[in-house]
Amino acid sequence: MTFGLFLPEEARDGPVPVLWFLSGLTCTHENAMVKGGAQAFAAEHGLALAFPDTSPRGEGVADDPAFDLGQGAGFYVNATEAPWSPHFRMWDYVAHELPTLVTRNFEIDEERQAITGHSMGGHGALTLAMGLPGRFRSVSAFAPICNPVASDWGRKQFTAYLGTDESAWSGHDASVLMAKRGFDGPMLVDTGTKDQFWDLLRTEALVAAIAARRQEAVVRLQPGYDHSYFFISTFMGEHVAFHAEALYR
Amino acid sequence: MTFGLFLPEEARDGPVPVLWFLSGLTCTHENAMVKGGAQAFAAEHGLALAFPDTSPRGEGVADDPAFDLGQGAGFYVNATEAPWSPHFRMWDYVAHELPTLVTRNFEIDEERQAITGHSMGGHGALTLAMGLPGRFRSVSAFAPICNPVASDWGRKQFTAYLGTDESAWSGHDASVLMAKRGFDGPMLVDTGTKDQFWDLLRTEALVAAIAARRQEAVVRLQPGYDHSYFFISTFMGEHVAFHAEALYR
Repeated sequence: MTFGLFLPEEARDGPVPVLWFLSGLTCTHENAMVKGGAQAFAAEHGLALAFPDTSPRGEGVADDPAFDLGQGAGFYVNATEAPWSPHFRMWDYVAHELPTLVTRNFEIDEERQAITGHSMGGHGALTLAMGLPGRFRSVSAFAPICNPVASDWGRKQFTAYLGTDESAWSGHDASVLMAKRGFDGPMLVDTGTKDQFWDLLRTEALVAAIAARRQEAVVRLQPGYDHSYFFISTFMGEHVAFHAEALYR
Repeated sequence: MTFGLFLPEEARDGPVPVLWFLSGLTCTHENAMVKGGAQAFAAEHGLALAFPDTSPRGEGVADDPAFDLGQGAGFYVNATEAPWSPHFRMWDYVAHELPTLVTRNFEIDEERQAITGHSMGGHGALTLAMGLPGRFRSVSAFAPICNPVASDWGRKQFTAYLGTDESAWSGHDASVLMAKRGFDGPMLVDTGTKDQFWDLLRTEALVAAIAARRQEAVVRLQPGYDHSYFFISTFMGEHVAFHAEALYR
């Protein structure tokens, strides 16, 4: 597994907080590193940035010709079904393996972590934040997949990775998790009003659940923006500042 | 030919100044758009950004298997030699055709233009700025090829595009042009001390010519930086601010 890590100058003197960025469909660890523009803001705020890949890769790793299943499309779950279960354990990788590795090998403060992501990675950020209470001080997302159990970006993948018993899916749906338990900290979600995948995201389900729970949250529908990295890089500075405030509180 | 154009909000109300960004070997118009991070700074300063491609492309256009000749490697010259001469007229494209097109079709002020670029595009920016006196108010470059007539990034390409008579090359060498005529305005050059192509850039030739002419210029050798877009995006804000000062003076 390949990942990206940005360390600010402050890491020379001791552990720094870390913001995780989970990427979307088709991405590797590299897309956000190269196109997200987060590093300058992280340097300003003294944050580390960690960029995991979106799936296992390589010889002997299952794949599918579709862009939204298999390599590049791990959906941040532990697959239980063939042929995926031997390698597709992205929940464990992002929740446990990689955090252990980076906090042991770099000046990262495991007590001060935050998480964000884009699209499928926004789904990952929201579900990990709610699924690991106490782990992350803040969570944000760019155009997240909000309700995969009711979307073609979700049903197909969860059926493949987790099987047809839908009760196994609910721990991986941000809207369901929000209705059940919410997040103990601040939340920021940005989605563009011209997002070309709007119908697949089901932002409306998450917003309804946030409102029903009275979750501390800011949800912004940004006029004119689409699903691209131009959208992400435009608001990256505000997301990094949002997390910095929570991490340095 | 495909190009990128960023217009700031001010362009709704009338013509705005423009900063041209010329890209390096292997790039299209898209690399700097996606990875350079210039748009946010251009929006702050009210500048348009224009991103030309680095060569002609498509069916019937000559090419070479090497990454540094043919498509993606136009070197901003008008080729006179076969098989390049029918299409490889990048000097005319960037100096005349594209400026005419964008100033006629968009709210761009042709009296307020500046130019920058990276590597081969830094070579293009410097040679166009000195070769078209009065056109550009300011010029900058990131890790420019400074002395192509004496470099393997230059001699091979000029031989192919312009022929073996080296007298045809001198109008396309920033160090030669600096020695002959210089630039009537401010100049900014950034190059990383860990640039992996250091020997090919021949920064020392340009610096010597700048000093001999007493050219108004800032040349910065940035410790630890390499030739990548991480280097470019790190200093992009300062380059855009440098040009904005010249364009709004």
